[in-house]
Amino acid sequence: MTTFKDADAFGEFDVIRRFFHRQHFTPSDLNLAPAHAQDVLLGIGDDCALLSPPPSGEVFAITSDMLIEGRHFLKDVSPTLLGHKCLAVNLSDLAAMGAKPVAYNLSIALPEIHPTWLEQFSNGLHAIADHYHCQLLGGDTTAGPLSISITAIGHVLPQQALSRNRAQVGDDIWLSGDVGDARLVLGFRRGEWQLDIPWQEKSARMDAPIPRIELGLGLRGLAHAAIDVSDGLLGDLKHILEASKVGAKVWADDVPCSDLLKNVSTELRRLCTLRGGDDYELCFTAPQKNRALIKTLSENLHLPLTRIGEIVAHSEHSPIIELWDHDHNQLPEEITQHYLKSFDHFQSL
Amino acid sequence: MTTFKDADAFGEFDVIRRFFHRQHFTPSDLNLAPAHAQDVLLGIGDDCALLSPPPSGEVFAITSDMLIEGRHFLKDVSPTLLGHKCLAVNLSDLAAMGAKPVAYNLSIALPEIHPTWLEQFSNGLHAIADHYHCQLLGGDTTAGPLSISITAIGHVLPQQALSRNRAQVGDDIWLSGDVGDARLVLGFRRGEWQLDIPWQEKSARMDAPIPRIELGLGLRGLAHAAIDVSDGLLGDLKHILEASKVGAKVWADDVPCSDLLKNVSTELRRLCTLRGGDDYELCFTAPQKNRALIKTLSENLHLPLTRIGEIVAHSEHSPIIELWDHDHNQLPEEITQHYLKSFDHFQSL
Repeated sequence: MTTFKDADAFGEFDVIRRFFHRQHFTPSDLNLAPAHAQDVLLGIGDDCALLSPPPSGEVFAITSDMLIEGRHFLKDVSPTLLGHKCLAVNLSDLAAMGAKPVAYNLSIALPEIHPTWLEQFSNGLHAIADHYHCQLLGGDTTAGPLSISITAIGHVLPQQALSRNRAQVGDDIWLSGDVGDARLVLGFRRGEWQLDIPWQEKSARMDAPIPRIELGLGLRGLAHAAIDVSDGLLGDLKHILEASKVGAKVWADDVPCSDLLKNVSTELRRLCTLRGGDDYELCFTAPQKNRALIKTLSENLHLPLTRIGEIVAHSEHSPIIELWDHDHNQLPEEITQHYLKSFDHFQSL
Repeated sequence: MTTFKDADAFGEFDVIRRFFHRQHFTPSDLNLAPAHAQDVLLGIGDDCALLSPPPSGEVFAITSDMLIEGRHFLKDVSPTLLGHKCLAVNLSDLAAMGAKPVAYNLSIALPEIHPTWLEQFSNGLHAIADHYHCQLLGGDTTAGPLSISITAIGHVLPQQALSRNRAQVGDDIWLSGDVGDARLVLGFRRGEWQLDIPWQEKSARMDAPIPRIELGLGLRGLAHAAIDVSDGLLGDLKHILEASKVGAKVWADDVPCSDLLKNVSTELRRLCTLRGGDDYELCFTAPQKNRALIKTLSENLHLPLTRIGEIVAHSEHSPIIELWDHDHNQLPEEITQHYLKSFDHFQSL
């Protein structure tokens, strides 16, 4: 249906070979894969890839994310940044489970074969994959409206997995780094607000998120439950609360944000930090007795970790999240509900 | 960007819960997953799914396929059949590796949320998944032009994996079932040919392919190399030949086809059988000494297995595939090249 520039020069198999095939296995002897590729016995170029079992006692953590042009990224996005981001958002899910990345599969639909675009996209993809020692297993390349679907695989001891259902009453609620800048940038790009502040310097928060892999690994044994903040802090926290059948008190104005957001109106700041989305920080719960260890972890990783609330018992008759301001006043329930509406790919861009 | 009917009634999370969430784990105790779900410790509804290691000595086989409307399926396709097909084509890749299916991840972009469509799609998907004991791990749901991306996972002993690079000179080349009907049906639907034959009765060959899982498992230890015929028999066989650094003689008119194709012109029959695509039969190579065991396997599975050629040595100066007709004449090289042009999702629909 779609026509392609360079259709004679590049077919589906050429695209895979030229831009994504980097590992040189010796598949005639499956036991002789290079040392750095010990997990991947057979990579791109067969019906399936072959992946070694996880280390003894561990299980595989598996996650998929699909990114669609016009919904998850804008049409004029840098291909290098897009290559980075499409793997970063998947690695962020591994981080939220406390899993160590191993490998990923890539399916990509392209409206046309544009070598420069593909070169830049694969550079961005390979750079972040190499950084986290996450190998490309294979995948699929086809023609179609631009979309990227990645499945990432990591491993974790099941008893240390930071699943959403393990929060306990009395746990502290923590947040890594700061949140809200990605939403602030999106708002400027979409013309939702116009303020005379240097928002462009925060573009990387939207375009090149950093998956908190090292934090996820460090939280094994320290935290109970975790989630990555992709659809908005409160909405994502709510997933933990529902899965764990608990409630939360959140100190709305203690949620860490950039200096830029500290200087906008309270309303805009709260909108960006509490409901924002695309932050890819980790929100996690941990017993109070682990505060000192978490503080040490924060120092070791050079990554701020901030307590933003606490897990409380929840009954049918109380709101699942109570928001409190810096004057120790509880925010009205309808305000909380407003911030709870997380980014939903079916409800709006 | 996209607007949705029923946008208030169904959000992203509702879609997942209502149509795809079937397993009821007790994730508060990860060791207490139901017996039938022993491989999946944690399913839909967390940042990642958790999957048990493969049986001792085995490795995971992993494959991804992306299906795009207008390219891999027509707009008016039955949602039930589409649900079947999008998993079937992935299971077919597991079959071609001799792997036993375990689980899969689904990412789906939908232009609108249409409950009836989703109900039928998920019914088709769940039916084939249940048949092959392949569990849904999770995935992603988003708005966008209709496309479906699945990653399927199975397991196999690495030394028994039917990888493409293991064909040996002297091997027989075998084909399961028959090929060409899917291409014949596509040609009728696209108006490429008009013949007075009951082609509609072959629609299932295009719409509801059967992955040859049992055959792939049965070929462990019997076959050397295998591929599933998705892009055209000769083009797919060529992948085996290139990976194994060998050539092939193929008996063009011995390639099994339906009675319908036996009664069309030689040219159309050869086009459909040799270059067709969407067949999802297995083409495999095996040593001659295994002929009797393969015949027994064929009888046990009630699935015809036909020898269609042999693996030969290949030098730079000879064509990688020689085609021979039923009169023992070699077909001209340019005819062979014509049939070798496999379906390429970037070159044409």
